[in-house]
Amino acid sequence: MSDVYAARRTRLRERCHAAGSQSAVISRPANVRYLAGAAPHGSVLLLGRREDLLVCPGPLDDRPGEARPDESLRPHLLAGPGGGDPAVAAADLAAAQDADALAVEEHHLTVARHRAIASVAPHLRLTDLGSSVEQLRVVKDEEEISCLRIGAEIADQALGELLESILVGRTERHLALELERRLVDHGADGPAFPTSVATGPNSGRRGHRPTDRRVEEGDFLSVCLGATYRGYRCEIGRTFVIGTSPADWQIELYDLVFAAQRAGRESLVPGAACRDVDRAARQVLDSAGYAEGLQPLTGHGVGLEIAEDPQLAPSAMGKLDACVPVTVEPGVHLPGRGGVRIDDTLVVRPEADGGPELLTITTKELLAL
Amino acid sequence: MSDVYAARRTRLRERCHAAGSQSAVISRPANVRYLAGAAPHGSVLLLGRREDLLVCPGPLDDRPGEARPDESLRPHLLAGPGGGDPAVAAADLAAAQDADALAVEEHHLTVARHRAIASVAPHLRLTDLGSSVEQLRVVKDEEEISCLRIGAEIADQALGELLESILVGRTERHLALELERRLVDHGADGPAFPTSVATGPNSGRRGHRPTDRRVEEGDFLSVCLGATYRGYRCEIGRTFVIGTSPADWQIELYDLVFAAQRAGRESLVPGAACRDVDRAARQVLDSAGYAEGLQPLTGHGVGLEIAEDPQLAPSAMGKLDACVPVTVEPGVHLPGRGGVRIDDTLVVRPEADGGPELLTITTKELLAL
Repeated sequence: MSDVYAARRTRLRERCHAAGSQSAVISRPANVRYLAGAAPHGSVLLLGRREDLLVCPGPLDDRPGEARPDESLRPHLLAGPGGGDPAVAAADLAAAQDADALAVEEHHLTVARHRAIASVAPHLRLTDLGSSVEQLRVVKDEEEISCLRIGAEIADQALGELLESILVGRTERHLALELERRLVDHGADGPAFPTSVATGPNSGRRGHRPTDRRVEEGDFLSVCLGATYRGYRCEIGRTFVIGTSPADWQIELYDLVFAAQRAGRESLVPGAACRDVDRAARQVLDSAGYAEGLQPLTGHGVGLEIAEDPQLAPSAMGKLDACVPVTVEPGVHLPGRGGVRIDDTLVVRPEADGGPELLTITTKELLAL
Repeated sequence: MSDVYAARRTRLRERCHAAGSQSAVISRPANVRYLAGAAPHGSVLLLGRREDLLVCPGPLDDRPGEARPDESLRPHLLAGPGGGDPAVAAADLAAAQDADALAVEEHHLTVARHRAIASVAPHLRLTDLGSSVEQLRVVKDEEEISCLRIGAEIADQALGELLESILVGRTERHLALELERRLVDHGADGPAFPTSVATGPNSGRRGHRPTDRRVEEGDFLSVCLGATYRGYRCEIGRTFVIGTSPADWQIELYDLVFAAQRAGRESLVPGAACRDVDRAARQVLDSAGYAEGLQPLTGHGVGLEIAEDPQLAPSAMGKLDACVPVTVEPGVHLPGRGGVRIDDTLVVRPEADGGPELLTITTKELLAL
């Protein structure tokens, strides 16, 4: 694995050189982890002229199961409590390697830390690394996809077990906690994001935080969960109906959202414009009269963070590449009544390889539970 | 409650005026919540020359149980998906109120957002608000303390129930999840921080993240958890021994940490220097030969965040005031063997009012479970 991280740093170094900086400090945790194999709390990565260093505020975490930094990378531990800001220390170390320019992540670094860096290394010209690392992270290698695949399996298992249990009378909060326990049982590092369980009038709301409302006969129940596995985060969302016979409006709404979600999935091909994928899903809902109140995104990239580039949205720029994992998650929420969301994580693949790879395989038939 | 938030904003406004700014943008979420009653995701608070506005990226969350913004405060909703950065919009609104200086939280705002503000409002002189709001937050009113007290009761209940169950053979992860479920059962918004359960050689480690290690006979078991109640976060930590007869070294170590923790608690009086409280606890451990490897803090303030000012540390500046809630949490960890941490949340009170108020009342006798 060591080679992987070193190769990523080489790619980033090339970008930095092209932009006129011989060195860079990476502070955003997911970016540090991507380039260093681990991101101990508060650590930053120095991409130096002579040597790369992982600058940590304290000792490394050596517990089993904890992500370890790449072995080709020398950790630099700041001594003692309050040993200072690792970003400032990294700038100092960059200056000691005779750098004259240092790129920083202006979208992550605070103004106060930026000032502290400028004052400790006044001869260093500070430039903006921008979202260079985030851009490198968009296309995943097979190792990363394999982590996402395992995470998706775990989420499918947790969801499947929940569906076998009695649901009526239980609260949204309890169901969410139960799902999170099952994720961990099946080997997840933890939930990829706060599990959402929405019943009745809450159903179909994106990012709904569970309340004390109890599941009732006749409810829609929407669930959205994901597992983190070795740092990689996936997402699955399903909507069910409680009781033996869904109402007509429920069946109609479900079929509509299902059609929208399928249209989105089917448009996931390498080279597709992100906004076209969004439009494919969105226009199904638009043309049925649900243009108002649709969520701003119909999907997004996933990886070391749960919401990464690309965005599948009306104003999104850019095209999809192969090996980019994204969610497709249209939904409709009718205030006071509830609604439907269906959410999968898929990997964009060329048609010759069988088209988009569905990672979250729980059925999307409308189950009456 | 509306008066409370308006009064807080008035105090902040006075500080801003004294520092030469007629207006300010508050972006740090806990600070927004403190001044506005709620901090919808991504929102910022404009303290304007003519009017204060809560600038939100999208519609307000109107679910029952969700914190609502102060009614005296006008919400300003940015229209449509991707309606822009609320901090930038707030700067624009400040300029429209004829401000010529705008204070921002440089310790929270990123360099990129700061640049965006400067470019949208080039005639506005940007100054640093520093940690003005954090300083206002240190001394709590009785309403805030009451939320902490309820949170502490919830944590005590969750912990008490766990102690009645069978522990041997269960993993750290499961015990942690179980505690978090119980917190929510008893009415917490959620855990105040990731629950820590540490067994055997892991026991006594501050912030230990639960692993798959199972509880064994003869183990020390240290648990640290807290509830969030109406946004306020408290903390309790206890160490137990598993099995009927603790070893001599366990009893000795426990008694030592208990003595250190008591010394810390007893030194919590209004006017005490923070470093003296730290020293009171620390010197008990130092003089027993545990100077090496002690954690940098023996306690910290709590409130809308789990780690607030003041810090109880050797280099801490400042003195304690009445109505400041703090943790006292010394611990010793012996590599390979385990250790002890004891952690309470208390409110500093004058001696005439009975001295420090203990919020977390679970027994600190060494229980053999």
